[in-house]
Parts: sequence; structure tokens; C-alpha cells
Amino acid sequence: MISVSRRSAVEPFHAMDILAEATRRRQAGRPVISMAVGQPGHPAPRVARKAAEKALAHGRIGYTDALGLMELRKALAKSYERRHGLAVDPARIVVTTGSSAGFNLAFLALFDQGDAVAIARPGYPAYRAILSALGLKVVEIPVTAETGHTLTPESLEAAQREHDVRLKGVLLASPANPTGTVTSRAQLETLYRYCGDNGISLISDEIYHGLTYGSEETTALEFGDNAVIINSFSKYYCMTGWRIGWMVVPDNLARVIECLGQSLYISAPELSQIAAIAALEAGDVLEEYKASYAANREFLMERLPALGLPLLSPMDGAFYAYVDATRYTNDSMEFAKRMLAEIDVAVTPGLDFDPVNGHLALRLSYAGTMQEMQDAADRMARWLS
Amino acid sequence: MISVSRRSAVEPFHAMDILAEATRRRQAGRPVISMAVGQPGHPAPRVARKAAEKALAHGRIGYTDALGLMELRKALAKSYERRHGLAVDPARIVVTTGSSAGFNLAFLALFDQGDAVAIARPGYPAYRAILSALGLKVVEIPVTAETGHTLTPESLEAAQREHDVRLKGVLLASPANPTGTVTSRAQLETLYRYCGDNGISLISDEIYHGLTYGSEETTALEFGDNAVIINSFSKYYCMTGWRIGWMVVPDNLARVIECLGQSLYISAPELSQIAAIAALEAGDVLEEYKASYAANREFLMERLPALGLPLLSPMDGAFYAYVDATRYTNDSMEFAKRMLAEIDVAVTPGLDFDPVNGHLALRLSYAGTMQEMQDAADRMARWLS
Repeated sequence: MISVSRRSAVEPFHAMDILAEATRRRQAGRPVISMAVGQPGHPAPRVARKAAEKALAHGRIGYTDALGLMELRKALAKSYERRHGLAVDPARIVVTTGSSAGFNLAFLALFDQGDAVAIARPGYPAYRAILSALGLKVVEIPVTAETGHTLTPESLEAAQREHDVRLKGVLLASPANPTGTVTSRAQLETLYRYCGDNGISLISDEIYHGLTYGSEETTALEFGDNAVIINSFSKYYCMTGWRIGWMVVPDNLARVIECLGQSLYISAPELSQIAAIAALEAGDVLEEYKASYAANREFLMERLPALGLPLLSPMDGAFYAYVDATRYTNDSMEFAKRMLAEIDVAVTPGLDFDPVNGHLALRLSYAGTMQEMQDAADRMARWLS
Repeated sequence: MISVSRRSAVEPFHAMDILAEATRRRQAGRPVISMAVGQPGHPAPRVARKAAEKALAHGRIGYTDALGLMELRKALAKSYERRHGLAVDPARIVVTTGSSAGFNLAFLALFDQGDAVAIARPGYPAYRAILSALGLKVVEIPVTAETGHTLTPESLEAAQREHDVRLKGVLLASPANPTGTVTSRAQLETLYRYCGDNGISLISDEIYHGLTYGSEETTALEFGDNAVIINSFSKYYCMTGWRIGWMVVPDNLARVIECLGQSLYISAPELSQIAAIAALEAGDVLEEYKASYAANREFLMERLPALGLPLLSPMDGAFYAYVDATRYTNDSMEFAKRMLAEIDVAVTPGLDFDPVNGHLALRLSYAGTMQEMQDAADRMARWLS
């Protein structure tokens, strides 16, 4: 037997395990409804698929520059201008193989072995796994209703005292996964300033931008050039399987990330880059998609509590409901597996997002169709009663 | 200014820098001939592009299981049966986002901070950069004509004595980049046994399989299940920009790599996975492509030495000529930049592959067209005289 490293002992991303099991069941002919993975039910916008089709006919799909096609970097800059009124130099924009590559590159570029990085709990599990595989110390900071489910200077100070560390980095997602929390402009600015004043690198995960339901949407770029922004075409643009995202980085980080990216990724998939340029101009259809999530959200905000699954957070953005399953289980993993096995509804155990309290919680993605939401709710109603 | 980690201080992948400069020049209307990057001039096989086109029309391109589409894993198993007469369990096959992801996953799964891993010098520069970003100790072992340009138990023993380390891993490519070396079956088997006997994990980089010119082609799988095999659709299948490759791993590593992959990559691009299934059945066209490289190779084997650029290795496989540029320069980097600036021929400085002697060497990729080879040689002849 080949020997395995210690650092590879990361927790499984349970949502992906559930996805794998859901795939097996679907292939066996079962009527699976998947609410486990954060993946839009809609296809990529037609203009994006058309652009890819044209590129395919044209012939060779090759490596691009490690930082990505300049045309895409310029189109992204234009999009910041349009959406946020911000002038961003394309030289600071890095095209990545999904936000997954963005996180890995940011962590490698900013942190050395043993450095402490804070994340919110509950939060996206891949943060924890990547940080830990890279030898970084993960400082999980519980977020609660009192702090608006987000990280604050006070909670960072308290965590540093409690864990006796000086933070080297803070990673905050807004809108957040799984809580749907949207951090307000004032709160995000406060955090940005606090990090700047304390030599802490701020990574702002903005991959759910575009998907807020009434809340204001702020990019950390509004406050200055010193945060690392991570974004993606997966969610708002419905391009998960294309593996395409981007970063906006401080001036002095662009070349560092270029060199790391040259070796670690070579480049993002060219076809996806070409499609992404078109996706930025897709317009109305994306707002229609968003309206469908908004309708699903309204439905679940009412239906889930009625099923005995009260909401743990306000669902202001992204497309997740994070619910308290205490009434039915204290082992969310077993519960999610049984739900998939017995009624073919795939949801994610809270354990993915919160190693402390997640055994009592479930995350349901509402990026599918209304019909799926209704069917899933009906199956759950019969099953839970 | 945001602070930068120590471990991100990796060498640039100069070939990628040259690619970026070549792109800029081409966009400015210059007649650039690119022999810098290891990238076939041919497009992906038509059947692969057709399969992608069909999937595009069909709609959603989503995340797949982290290990990849089972259909692709089964097709790869079948391909080992057909090409090597080997029965490989698809459960041991991991689809990756190019071999780049394969290397990163293998290093993370096998090695911890500070572990020593041997690679050949000259060799693929991304090995060094990824290993070093992950906190591993890179032990470069010079390969020369005496050892057939490959790693041997003797050279590994000598390196361990010299550097006073116990190797935890060895990474060998055959066919090799940049030397084109094909390690013989006997030599590879000897290395496999030596690693097994000494608790050293062997990673066999087989991404240039399919591209040997008269030499036998051996996969380390022939000797047992204890090596980590890395392969890719980029080279033989002409799918660089699709970012799609695979690993074959020992039984006990599959789940470890699945968990790492779930967080670090989520999955390889689905469209590329679908196209790859078709590419495995592309048949004759790939052999025609190979014949075109073989013709280029014959041409350059004669022409380069005649230009005063003698071959440093036998060019038995892959699609590279590694040449001695001593007659013209002792600064291959400056020389390559000047060649691009003055005659629009992009080649890679040997420094990419060999930090010790690479200042005297150049690598030329011959995966383009014969016309390009001839034009490049003619421009170089005029320029060098």
C-alpha cells in the first residue's frame, strides 16, 4: 500500500458525496430531485453556448495566457464599470479555473505554512479543506444572528484571543453559503478597514453576486485595492461545469499569481473563457433565472418552517435555505442519506458547513425549478409525518 | 501593499511568459511562429468536437462527480485494455483538470511539508514550482547520456547521499519533456521495484504516451498497482486548452484524492470530459497527427545541428528538440527573447527545465506544421548567420 500524507486527511465535501450517490441513483432510473449541490438548474445562457459552438467549429482550443484571454479580462473590467461604477485595470484581473482555483491561488500567494486564516462557521467547506491541505491554521469563527451572521472586528479580536493567534488572513463570503447572509456595505467597509489596519489580508468571496433578493450588493473593491476578490461564472451565469471564474487582486499580487498559475493550472479552459465573454452580455435571461430562484425562495421560506424545519438564517442572497432539523434528527448526515435513499430527495448535511452544530442542520439549494421545489416539499411532507 | 507569501516565490514558467509575449505580438499583426509551448497545432479530433457540440445544444453543463464521469473512467479502462492489455478497475481512475491537477493532487495526497521528492534535471518546470509551493523539498537529479537521460536507482542513491535526505517520492516522465527521452521497459521496471523496496512513492508522468518514434512505450501499471500514473488528453489527443487529464492510482489513494479533489477542483470541466470520451475513439486521425510530428522531427534532427544547434538528447518521444545553444549564447533567456523580438520565432529558454545548465540550452516544440518548421528554420538560418 502506498503511503498517504497527513495533510490529505481532509473532510469529505459531503455535498459532493451526496451528488455522487444521487448520480448513481438517477442512472439506476430513480426520480432524484437534487437540492444538494449549489448548481443552477438552468443551462448557461444561449449566447454563451453559441459562442462556444462557434469556437468549436473554428478548430483548435489551446492554452491561453496564464492570466486568461485579454478580451475576457477587459470584458470583466467593463462589467465592474457597469455594475458598480468602478474602474478596474484589466491587469489586476486574473481568469481562473472556477473559484476553486481562485481560492487555492489566493491562499498560496498570501499565506505560508502555519499562518492563521479566519473563516465563518457555518461556511463553505472547501475553504477549510484547501486551507488545511496547504498547511494553514483554520480559525473558525461562529457567526450568529447577533452579528448579522457575518464576521466583525469584534469577533475577529475575540477569536484571536481565544485561539492565541495573530490572524494573517480573513475570508468572507457575501452572499454567504450556506446561510444566504448578505453583509451590509457598512459592515464590509468596517471589516476592510480593520484588516488593512491590522496587516490582515482580506479575501472577499463574491461568487454569489447577482443573487440578492432586496439587499444591497457590495464588492470589497469599492473600498480600495487591497482585498483579493474571488468571483465565478458558476452561479449567476449558470456555468458550474465550465469551471470558469476570476479574481481581482492588488497590483503587487498579479505577477505572483501569474507565476503560480502558470505551473498549477497553465490556464483556464479556453472554450469556457470564450463562452464567459458572451455570458457577460447575456442580460435579461439571467434576471429571469434569478426571478425563478426568488420565487422558489418565497415558496421555501413558507414551506420549510411549516414542515418543522425552521430557517437558521435570513436567505438574503445566494440560493440556499439553511434549516434547523433538530425536530427530526441529531445526525444530519444519516438523515440526509436516508432522505436520499427513501424519497430520492438530495440535500446536504449541515456537517459540511459547520463541524460543531451542523449535525442539527441541513442545507437545501433552491436553484432548481419550482416544480422540483414543490415535489421535494411534498415528498418530505409525507416522509416526515 | 498586501503581503506576499514566501512559498509563492516560484520561478516563472518561462514558456508561458514567452507565450504571453507571442500572443501580444500576434495580436499586433506579427507573423509569429510558436515553438515555445508544448501544444499541438492540430485541433482536437472532429469526433471530440462534435460530441462537445452536441452536449452544448443539449443544455446544462454541470458539475460531475469529483472523480469524473463514470462513462469516461470506463472508457479509459477500456483503452488500457486495448493499448496495453491491462485490466484496470475504473474505481482507480480519476479524471482531472489536466495533468496539472494530477500533479497537485498526487503531491498533496502523498507528501507532507518537508518531504523530499526527486525529479530529473532537465525536466518539466511546473514540477519544481508546484512541489516548492506545497512546501516540499525538490531534489533535482541530473540525467545524462550515461544513464540514458533517465533516473536510475544508482542516481537516486547518489542524490540521497549528496543531499543527505531520504526520498519520499520520485517523479519520472517517459517520454520526457524537454529531452524526449523514452525510458526502456527494463529501466522503468527496475525503478518501480527500487521505489517499492525503499518506501518511495513513484509518480509516473505518461502524458506523452502515444508519441514515441520507434521506441517501446511502457506504463508503470504493467509492473503493479503501486505507482501513481498521470496522463492527459493534451498531447496525443490535441486537447491542451480543454484542461482534461486522468490519473490511475493505487486502491487506497482513490478516496483520498476524491476528497481533496472535491474541495480543490470540484470536478473537471464537463464538456471536456464528454469530448474526451469521444477522443478515445478518434483512431486514425491521431496517428496521422503523430506522423506529422515524426516528419517534423526528421526535418529538425537534420536542420538544427546544421544551424549550429546540436541535439542534447535523442528525441525518442514527445515533440521537443532540446538543443545546445553554446555557440550563440550563454544566456538562453535573453537569446529566446531576442529571437522572438527580431524574427518572431518563439522558443523556450533551457532555464525553464534546468536551472544549472539551461542557460546554454533551448527547447523547440515541433508539434506545429512542417511549413512552420521550415519557415522557422529559414528565419533562424538568416538570423544566426
